[in-house]
Amino acid sequence: MATPRALSRLATRALARRPALHQTTRLSPRTIAPSYTPVRLGSTLPPRSAAFTKPTEDHIKAIRALLSSNSSLISTIDGTATAEDLQSYNDDWMNKYHGKGPIVVKPKSTEEVSKVMKYCYENDLAIVPQGGNTGLVGGSNPVHDEIILNLSNLSQIRSFDPVSGILVADAGVILEAADNHLAEQGFIFPLDLGAKGSCHIGGNVATNAGGLRLLRYGSLHGTVLGLEAVLPDGTIWNGLSKLRKDNTGFDIKQLFIGSEGTIGIITAVSILCPRRPSAMNVAVFSLPSYEAVQTVFGEAKAYLGEILSAFEFFDKQSYALVKKHQEENGGHRSVFEQEGDFYCLIETGGSNAEHDEAKLTELLEHLLSNDLVMDGVLAQDTTQFHAIWNLRELVPESAGKAGSVYKYDVSVPVGKMYGLVEKMRTRLRENGVLDGDGNPEGPIRAVAGYGHMGDGNLHINIVANKYTDEVEKIIEPYIYEIVAEFDGSISAEHGLGVMKAPYVHYSKNETSIAMMKQIKQLFDPKGLLNPYKYIV
Amino acid sequence: MATPRALSRLATRALARRPALHQTTRLSPRTIAPSYTPVRLGSTLPPRSAAFTKPTEDHIKAIRALLSSNSSLISTIDGTATAEDLQSYNDDWMNKYHGKGPIVVKPKSTEEVSKVMKYCYENDLAIVPQGGNTGLVGGSNPVHDEIILNLSNLSQIRSFDPVSGILVADAGVILEAADNHLAEQGFIFPLDLGAKGSCHIGGNVATNAGGLRLLRYGSLHGTVLGLEAVLPDGTIWNGLSKLRKDNTGFDIKQLFIGSEGTIGIITAVSILCPRRPSAMNVAVFSLPSYEAVQTVFGEAKAYLGEILSAFEFFDKQSYALVKKHQEENGGHRSVFEQEGDFYCLIETGGSNAEHDEAKLTELLEHLLSNDLVMDGVLAQDTTQFHAIWNLRELVPESAGKAGSVYKYDVSVPVGKMYGLVEKMRTRLRENGVLDGDGNPEGPIRAVAGYGHMGDGNLHINIVANKYTDEVEKIIEPYIYEIVAEFDGSISAEHGLGVMKAPYVHYSKNETSIAMMKQIKQLFDPKGLLNPYKYIV
Repeated sequence: MATPRALSRLATRALARRPALHQTTRLSPRTIAPSYTPVRLGSTLPPRSAAFTKPTEDHIKAIRALLSSNSSLISTIDGTATAEDLQSYNDDWMNKYHGKGPIVVKPKSTEEVSKVMKYCYENDLAIVPQGGNTGLVGGSNPVHDEIILNLSNLSQIRSFDPVSGILVADAGVILEAADNHLAEQGFIFPLDLGAKGSCHIGGNVATNAGGLRLLRYGSLHGTVLGLEAVLPDGTIWNGLSKLRKDNTGFDIKQLFIGSEGTIGIITAVSILCPRRPSAMNVAVFSLPSYEAVQTVFGEAKAYLGEILSAFEFFDKQSYALVKKHQEENGGHRSVFEQEGDFYCLIETGGSNAEHDEAKLTELLEHLLSNDLVMDGVLAQDTTQFHAIWNLRELVPESAGKAGSVYKYDVSVPVGKMYGLVEKMRTRLRENGVLDGDGNPEGPIRAVAGYGHMGDGNLHINIVANKYTDEVEKIIEPYIYEIVAEFDGSISAEHGLGVMKAPYVHYSKNETSIAMMKQIKQLFDPKGLLNPYKYIV
Repeated sequence: MATPRALSRLATRALARRPALHQTTRLSPRTIAPSYTPVRLGSTLPPRSAAFTKPTEDHIKAIRALLSSNSSLISTIDGTATAEDLQSYNDDWMNKYHGKGPIVVKPKSTEEVSKVMKYCYENDLAIVPQGGNTGLVGGSNPVHDEIILNLSNLSQIRSFDPVSGILVADAGVILEAADNHLAEQGFIFPLDLGAKGSCHIGGNVATNAGGLRLLRYGSLHGTVLGLEAVLPDGTIWNGLSKLRKDNTGFDIKQLFIGSEGTIGIITAVSILCPRRPSAMNVAVFSLPSYEAVQTVFGEAKAYLGEILSAFEFFDKQSYALVKKHQEENGGHRSVFEQEGDFYCLIETGGSNAEHDEAKLTELLEHLLSNDLVMDGVLAQDTTQFHAIWNLRELVPESAGKAGSVYKYDVSVPVGKMYGLVEKMRTRLRENGVLDGDGNPEGPIRAVAGYGHMGDGNLHINIVANKYTDEVEKIIEPYIYEIVAEFDGSISAEHGLGVMKAPYVHYSKNETSIAMMKQIKQLFDPKGLLNPYKYIV
């Protein structure tokens, strides 16, 4: 066992003397995309609904007349755009979904959104709302010929009050831009994502994005104070409250958070932003078992209390994938004297560096002196901070490099989380497709489990030598059945979109689905908004 | 100016040598009640709806047959109860609202709630759901002869997971009981209220209670993970998720949070509970202006960061009322060498006492050395902790002792908060009812402003020598008009109930109200659940 003293030394030796690893802590989707093997479509897409009008040149003329700028509408129908021009709006960034929308409208104000929606409503034209188009479930691309209503031109920060910490901004403001604006005044956006350089805050709210800071700042259901949205018939709903407390009726905005553009289009967001932590620390540990990870999670909460900002875990299969990937790209230096079956990463963010380090040191001493971890390293500088984060953040990219990946993103109660991975391995082994973890002879090369321990959010990456129907049928719907058995969610943070819409019954019971359908019907009786998706 | 050194000394001198003040930090509603002058009803109650069936002995027999215990139903109709027996269910604790419900049902399981609701639905019998009956707006008492469905017998804690911090409990569990259960394992319920000894967690969720810990733990919209509820037709909806992340459709439970029993009856709650702070500190300051309070609020957030757990303010009129009340009840010793026009109370709660004290000391040195406050004291022990909290918590009781109080509880953006109090004083002065603050000759003796600064939650207490229509007409609807002008809420945390239902348009626009009415209609087409209230 390493002593607490040794830990600090170990950290210096393990991390400081080697060449810097990948420095990226945030991977932009556009840069990740090429390194991922595109995920296949799980099922045939639904057919076009005859209830929707087919868009024509007359519609284009009429809509254009509603806009302040001619360039706010481009279309292949009237020759103002080629199919290539529209490709980045029709395709998702994983290049998995390919819509056929012939019209892209980019209104410059909420009023313009309203006018376009009203016209579409009166003419039975279907619409797909689109933010930064960084989603993972095909939610922001057309399925057929829906009009793409893109919010990029609504990109103004409306106000920020440093006394209350309340930011009000247009839906099309890019998350990173919002966060940079806040950083100048010592505040932080209470959400952080890999796609922060491209995604819109309106899209974040519409999809109830989770991300890396949920453990610390909670969900958007708690931090969003108000919304402005345009309803399917063009009515502008001003619910842009700047109040932390308001008990005057149903909290309507909550329905829009996570509605994936199916009941209205969010045009502005009011959100409560906390002070930016002035001190950040990160440590990573090797552990003998998943039970040990759970114990350390409890201890981290106890010792770090209010400064714990992330608790991530990954298994030895994940770590092996990352090591292999790093060896092939500039080299991997061993971080641990003793490797384990599991690893966990602990991040703190606080307002006083000295206090935070003292708390973290106490935790480390406790963990080591009680044999709760096998080994560990604590980042001593920014380079090491990023290097440690990379061990966790490179898992998906490394899996993509290793083969064709069946990717699942689920929520399971923390206690049962890793059981899902073990059940999946057993299933694959029993079906003869997994002779041993990482066996290059079998169709399945590795089953890696990792994720946001603090949020109960598990990622399973099943790495195969190629996609086959045989393997898929072994995995699905079995994986959804186990998630359901464990009272989990088949979509922790990515949403339903077109990809998971058919599987919602694995996570929601009949009563819930019936209520959802009634709410959709209430807000969007013609079903014009983001059709073929979400609750179908 | 006091030096930082002097502050600590001052604290000892000011607080340690005098007799202990009132030690109560939490005032139970039942103990407060006698000291309050009951608030009058603002408007005539709505007439009984002919759409509802009048309850008869046959209904009683039928409902009793659905219950496992005979004593779960008592009624004046079949002689199993006297009017006196039902009084505590028909009256609210302020003794302001007096229902005439002849039947009280206390089901012992969710299934029994379901059976009773189904029967009532089929027979058009109106129902008022009732938790601890500690509300302030007449929301949990019948208006006419509605059947009182009391949740007290659903009082089991179902589970607690110390790894995730997730508690699942019946709706009828008393808040303090839930918190005590959590305290044993080092956790805290993320909500704290004066009524904690009587209120139910189901009622807390149904009314979206705010309370003293909102600044730190956020609203119930963020901490509640799942609900079980019985819909008006008796359908049991199991939405009792134990997941922090779940993006599979509309977040239905959010509609129930703050719905005040109008669309279903909450029977169980799943809630995320944080670790209990092991260290608590409190300080109080005198300040020259409201602008200074805002500045100190910003500095407190910067210096204390993640350990700031409460930031309360009160004006000199509030302090004068408390001083007078304390002088009449055991004596008041001056806390401040320099009194100010304003006061603020800062509480910290963290996981490391030494660190918290260091942070607080740094803040105090900064505030004093920059003349941001006039004077201040820091509690040195538990007695002083309670004594300082009393200066803020005794305001409503002290106002009640000083005369007949017109009480308002509103949310206003922090920057405009005190402007509301000043506008009200001007209004009263211009109308000749306030010659000077605290003038015993005028009908208005004092206008005191105080509240949860951190939440933008303002309480205004207008102390009159007696209630008169003349004064009421000067105050109302003027106060609601200013709240609307300031984009505020006419009900920060108390809800609408029967008291504020007619005034919701001051805080919600037509589109919002129309959506709310549609949601009520969707869930409760017969309007049987908590009629005459909320959205009318």
